[in-house]
Amino acid sequence: MPRILITSGPTREYLDPVRFLTNGSSGRMGASLAEAVLAAGSVPVVVSGPVAVQYPVGAEVRPVQTTDEMLNACLELFPSCAGVIAAAAPCDYKPVQYSEQKLSKKNNGTDTSSFDFVHTPDILAVLGQIKQKHQWSIGFALETEYGKEHALEKLKRKNCDFIVLNEPAAVNSDVSSVQVFDKNGELRLSSQGGKQKLAERLLELTAAFQR
Amino acid sequence: MPRILITSGPTREYLDPVRFLTNGSSGRMGASLAEAVLAAGSVPVVVSGPVAVQYPVGAEVRPVQTTDEMLNACLELFPSCAGVIAAAAPCDYKPVQYSEQKLSKKNNGTDTSSFDFVHTPDILAVLGQIKQKHQWSIGFALETEYGKEHALEKLKRKNCDFIVLNEPAAVNSDVSSVQVFDKNGELRLSSQGGKQKLAERLLELTAAFQR
Repeated sequence: MPRILITSGPTREYLDPVRFLTNGSSGRMGASLAEAVLAAGSVPVVVSGPVAVQYPVGAEVRPVQTTDEMLNACLELFPSCAGVIAAAAPCDYKPVQYSEQKLSKKNNGTDTSSFDFVHTPDILAVLGQIKQKHQWSIGFALETEYGKEHALEKLKRKNCDFIVLNEPAAVNSDVSSVQVFDKNGELRLSSQGGKQKLAERLLELTAAFQR
Repeated sequence: MPRILITSGPTREYLDPVRFLTNGSSGRMGASLAEAVLAAGSVPVVVSGPVAVQYPVGAEVRPVQTTDEMLNACLELFPSCAGVIAAAAPCDYKPVQYSEQKLSKKNNGTDTSSFDFVHTPDILAVLGQIKQKHQWSIGFALETEYGKEHALEKLKRKNCDFIVLNEPAAVNSDVSSVQVFDKNGELRLSSQGGKQKLAERLLELTAAFQR
């Protein structure tokens, strides 16, 4: 049975043992995709950040915390997969310095602190570089402005076959309003509503690759 | 019926519409406390950051996102309460600048970015300043080192009646190993195990205030 890699959920980048940078990704899109992959007769291989959602029985799930861990898991698992759907929202900044001890807050309540962050690797861009002729990849672009323009720039830079453009309102929501573009910038799918329906329609789009 | 204020869960401090600083607080301690307050015949008034846990029916729940919002809700609700148990883990740094648009990541993957953060107000310290003679307050101190020393410093600074010392392992866990100290630095309770049991024993400690 073909295996399909799905990245899902947020990642966390810790400043100290307590505080971290993250985002509100719930993993619901990833869980819906895993359901759709199973329904299509393939095996979902889910690399997931910390989420409260349950992935379906039958999914192979690899839990990770940080973006580096997610990348490493994907590098290990992608070669055995037909394609990847990158529904995760990996944290794209990480602190330059991690403090082993909890940073202690200054007393005066008005102090400022400055933290330096370094960009984490772009997981899908890395997978786009190593992907073989028989493999495909689908990215997600969450944009607050210049949606289509930014999405197509990402599609190209990450060497994706399709890119799913959505909006911040989709994060941690049951529904989302998305547009899916192909390499030629053509609109291949416009979906509004439940993530399960979107997942099924996305899977249908990938059927063309499976031949 | 007496009302008891409970702060619960993490808060979030957004850098842009997607990314935020937070911590792994699950709200389970707050939910257990709300159960214990109900069982003791009082009304739990829960000011909660974003969590997946369910608070018991019968609790008055005020959802908030940021530390400032949590403080404002507490300032509004505390005067009508007999006391406060501050089980929340409010984010104690917030970005100096919030970007209305999603910050766009530079392309080269090695760029560093620097963000300035300002300390958020210490909610329990503020409540400690306005609390009346008939009111009491209990704080939590999550420490990775110098546990008792840091905890007692916090108790004093925040004008608490009791302080609960715990460890990072307690965050997002069903169990926790804690010690509770009073104003004289005396150990009043040492509890290891379920948060529900700890919640009940903490409530017993407050019984002395209710007379």
